[in-house]
Amino acid sequence: MREPEPTIETIRAAAERIAPHVHRTPVTTNETLDARIGASVFWKCENLQKAGAFKSRGACNAVFSLDEETAAAGVATHSSGNHGQALARAAARRGIPAHIVMPETAPAVKRAAVEGYGARVVPCAPTLAAREETLARVVAETGAHVVHPYDDVRVIAGQATAALELLEDAGPLDLVLAPVGGGGLLAGTALTIAAIAPGTRLVAAEPTGADDAARSLREGRRLPSIDPDTIADGLLTSTGELTFPIIQRLVAEIVTVDDAAIIAAMRLFWERTKLVIEPSSAVPVAALLEGKVDGMTGKRVGVILTGGNVDLGNLPW
Amino acid sequence: MREPEPTIETIRAAAERIAPHVHRTPVTTNETLDARIGASVFWKCENLQKAGAFKSRGACNAVFSLDEETAAAGVATHSSGNHGQALARAAARRGIPAHIVMPETAPAVKRAAVEGYGARVVPCAPTLAAREETLARVVAETGAHVVHPYDDVRVIAGQATAALELLEDAGPLDLVLAPVGGGGLLAGTALTIAAIAPGTRLVAAEPTGADDAARSLREGRRLPSIDPDTIADGLLTSTGELTFPIIQRLVAEIVTVDDAAIIAAMRLFWERTKLVIEPSSAVPVAALLEGKVDGMTGKRVGVILTGGNVDLGNLPW
Repeated sequence: MREPEPTIETIRAAAERIAPHVHRTPVTTNETLDARIGASVFWKCENLQKAGAFKSRGACNAVFSLDEETAAAGVATHSSGNHGQALARAAARRGIPAHIVMPETAPAVKRAAVEGYGARVVPCAPTLAAREETLARVVAETGAHVVHPYDDVRVIAGQATAALELLEDAGPLDLVLAPVGGGGLLAGTALTIAAIAPGTRLVAAEPTGADDAARSLREGRRLPSIDPDTIADGLLTSTGELTFPIIQRLVAEIVTVDDAAIIAAMRLFWERTKLVIEPSSAVPVAALLEGKVDGMTGKRVGVILTGGNVDLGNLPW
Repeated sequence: MREPEPTIETIRAAAERIAPHVHRTPVTTNETLDARIGASVFWKCENLQKAGAFKSRGACNAVFSLDEETAAAGVATHSSGNHGQALARAAARRGIPAHIVMPETAPAVKRAAVEGYGARVVPCAPTLAAREETLARVVAETGAHVVHPYDDVRVIAGQATAALELLEDAGPLDLVLAPVGGGGLLAGTALTIAAIAPGTRLVAAEPTGADDAARSLREGRRLPSIDPDTIADGLLTSTGELTFPIIQRLVAEIVTVDDAAIIAAMRLFWERTKLVIEPSSAVPVAALLEGKVDGMTGKRVGVILTGGNVDLGNLPW
């Protein structure tokens, strides 16, 4: 049976469920960036979210949706990034075990962050096959419940709550931009906008070096990321079985930007706003600065800044 | 005649005068930092202030205090740092000329920032004598009114408004920390606390490499900074004729931290809060992380984060 898509009711229920566990992040503005972009931009600061990214929303919604018996066995996922940290933190808040499968090549700082939330890190070889096999073994051994980073209705409903807050706090918007990787945030954002602000245009932004979503939308079928290569390491994954049909139905436009533009946008954003954003967050910023979005001039634009987890010892400039 | 010190009435008048021209910056909290420090810390984010630093408060108060005739001739100062940018911006908002004397060795980015606000940059040799001579010449030529970066009652009253907001937004505080360079922020903060929260203890933090205020307080007389050397480039100056007596009367404690601690605190702060702070702002952060403040454990502590203007191309780690 195909899992149902989240409705605005499940999204609102997610918002209520996760409220005690996540920040209602601020929406900020910046005059200099507005002048450069030629629009009034409202920045939804998920870089200031718990565990440093919007992923805390989906992870908390999934973890706090579990019945007692399922929860007791713990949760598991494979992730070297923000979802792993977010799931570890959500499990800790519920007081249940978390098993995070990570490639043994992952930076020590990422492993330490997951362990800092009390989760167990299970190292594996740095291939997708090894990650999936290792996760299957962990599940067989522990009975843990797998929370997928994006292809999960509870996760999509959780991510959808960021747009809910953005629309409430910024007021009416002509345009909303969000990056797309696996598509959990984009699908959730699309569902929220379709339900409560159907006149608002949604544009996705993707790195040129990982443009599977743009190609998939163009060809009308889900294509994999082939050798993705981009500084925006949160956007390397391909869209999912659940997320792609939502994106296909509700997202008309995906613009792409190259890594040079992403790095320049990230640096300018830090410099002018004093806010640390990670490369994935800089993708829609770059799309605006590079004038990639038709008809944006003079408009009220919302942008979801997805996260702020950056290796400060290894900046791309 | 000695200029009178600001009173709580002049500070409140300054707050009203500058309100249309500066941000009421947020006060944030961070669980991880609280756990490391062992106290509940309320961070007053002047790094998110207009022109990137609290200096906008004093500069706006000074510029908007001028009568029409004085204002018409413009304002001038010598500064290679945040005061120069803040004065340039304040003058632009009032629509009057600003002449900023800067050493010709100042980074191009700082010069560009001042010029970006429409001010005239007057280069000079990189010595205090050259700066003062050049400023005197600019004043002789233009009739501009000099706004000193800290030894000016209007500037002190402006800087004092940050503590006013911190105390309003954080609620009762056991302790407030602020860095000390020329002492404008510290003197203003001390006056505000003495007037409205006399039970709150004020501790100043200073770099070991520019500890003139700590030495001055100890010896009971104003000593100059001798060959100051610290990464905290906003704190190189010595206290002033106006600021030192206020500090001497109202500030009982100055703690010092070395550059290694300042750099580590700055990096940890960026990493955990996703907020860019400059080295001068990291001085009180380092004092807390290093346990330099007696009796801070379990207390409610306010910290004024002074600015976020950093050369991202030249980070100290």
